[in-house]
Amino acid sequence: MPHVVTGGAGFVAANLIPRLLELGHRVIAVDNLIRGQRKFLEPFISSGSVTFVEADCSDVEALRTALLPSAEEGLTDVWHLAANSDIPAGVADPYVDLQHTFMTTFSTLVVMKELGIKRIHFASSSAIYGDFKDARIAEDTAPYRPISNYGAMKLASEAQISAAAENFLERANVFRFPNVVGVPATHGVMLDFIQKLRKTPDRLDVLGNGTQQKAYLHVGDLVEAMLFIAEKGPDKLNIFNIGPSDDGVTVRHIAETVRDVVNPKAAIQYGEGNQGWIGDVPRFRYCVDRLAALGWAPSMGSSEAIEKAVRDIAKQEGL
Amino acid sequence: MPHVVTGGAGFVAANLIPRLLELGHRVIAVDNLIRGQRKFLEPFISSGSVTFVEADCSDVEALRTALLPSAEEGLTDVWHLAANSDIPAGVADPYVDLQHTFMTTFSTLVVMKELGIKRIHFASSSAIYGDFKDARIAEDTAPYRPISNYGAMKLASEAQISAAAENFLERANVFRFPNVVGVPATHGVMLDFIQKLRKTPDRLDVLGNGTQQKAYLHVGDLVEAMLFIAEKGPDKLNIFNIGPSDDGVTVRHIAETVRDVVNPKAAIQYGEGNQGWIGDVPRFRYCVDRLAALGWAPSMGSSEAIEKAVRDIAKQEGL
Repeated sequence: MPHVVTGGAGFVAANLIPRLLELGHRVIAVDNLIRGQRKFLEPFISSGSVTFVEADCSDVEALRTALLPSAEEGLTDVWHLAANSDIPAGVADPYVDLQHTFMTTFSTLVVMKELGIKRIHFASSSAIYGDFKDARIAEDTAPYRPISNYGAMKLASEAQISAAAENFLERANVFRFPNVVGVPATHGVMLDFIQKLRKTPDRLDVLGNGTQQKAYLHVGDLVEAMLFIAEKGPDKLNIFNIGPSDDGVTVRHIAETVRDVVNPKAAIQYGEGNQGWIGDVPRFRYCVDRLAALGWAPSMGSSEAIEKAVRDIAKQEGL
Repeated sequence: MPHVVTGGAGFVAANLIPRLLELGHRVIAVDNLIRGQRKFLEPFISSGSVTFVEADCSDVEALRTALLPSAEEGLTDVWHLAANSDIPAGVADPYVDLQHTFMTTFSTLVVMKELGIKRIHFASSSAIYGDFKDARIAEDTAPYRPISNYGAMKLASEAQISAAAENFLERANVFRFPNVVGVPATHGVMLDFIQKLRKTPDRLDVLGNGTQQKAYLHVGDLVEAMLFIAEKGPDKLNIFNIGPSDDGVTVRHIAETVRDVVNPKAAIQYGEGNQGWIGDVPRFRYCVDRLAALGWAPSMGSSEAIEKAVRDIAKQEGL
């Protein structure tokens, strides 16, 4: 049975899809190619194990057309990863996350109901929580107070999935991603730093004072956690934080790691304040006890994940 | 300074607006008149204290046009009450709550930002929580798992307001309404029962077995709570459950109260199961400790609120 992956040409999909293939599934990857890149999937498309459809899954008509031929063989699972990934762009213009982060989910659910697809695995985000200062954020740390339109529209997506679970879904898994790192990097602080250092090798300008601290998970571990929850999640609607069990690393640590890999002689220049942009949570401590209790632990902590990712992204960027 | 009330011709607005006028505000009432009724406001429109605009506040262009003339004198506050109020209709067709419950909020925020209106008071709902069985539901009872599209789109609205509070709002008050009763009744279980008994005076058919138990607040108390939180809420973003402190009454109790008022000889006929329809939470216990700690308590408990509402609705219906 083929599995559907929305946002199928994105960063997480590029890591998830090879694992789905290993598990014996064919894959239908749907992506509008605004941020995703078809080349991530090229070998699988060539070999016939991945069917790629260029479509925007916020467009019901386009998504229905994309999935209808396969629906007749029977589609069971959608891995719904499609979303805006540029949080500041979404803060500047709320229609960005309305369309790309929420309507993608809304329309995917509409088409799933029409076509009788009953299992969804959803890439939610720690951005739904907002700023809880130094508290360790568990799944039930509430009220949720997202501070970005991205976080708001991820929470809206969770809400719509929850209602769909009551209405027609047989299974819904909601993965609340932390910051995820690895390759193929398409955005994010590490790629940003590496690209800056390519332009001006002697100097790395950091937005904010570098004290922002967050947990980072390597994308390889993320994908394993998603597959683990999909197999072991006990309920019809499973909501799990995914992340390392440590309290994360600072932006300063990331900047230094990038400098050490790319150009140890570069000077790092910090800005002011501990919030990089509107919608950025300055400190973030994640509680992953619920996932640990289910029996899963990541292979790397935040610091190792950052180190591996920096090396791999530097290589990706030809350094 | 005029205050804006969206859903301005609805049930809650009909009770809120007279109180805003008493407090010395002029009111601009915006309503698409799909469920609201202009006649609720007629005396105030005639006297010039309320300006009524027929517009759908999910339509940015229409809402901007409606508010632009007054925005030049300076608008400060929006009481955002516009929403779908037919939960089963929204479960049958998710576009109903997308448009009327969520996009009303999204577009209202877009126009508020454009026009520099910085305080929102939002009618959210206990439907955001979903089914927590016998637990007392406080503001931080989570993860939220709405079971209706209405609840989902109220939660989506809260999320978007939370992000707007970080972005441009000076103040956002989120009121999580319980079931609210009173006149002018436009929908709800009491009006439904009374209308049924008018058609067949000897017999009252009840959906479900009557054991659904919920807390009910009288609309007069609801409005006082909203005004109280608007004045005393301590934070930029205030989220409060509003309700009576009791555990509510059963549908059976409501049916009997209606019967006693309308026709004491009528036979009540119950259905099966304790869930009336998809999206209906069968039992519901509400924790209002946070609002009590701020210093507010309702004048009536659930049972008194039901009794008063049944008498008033019967009168409204000419009985």
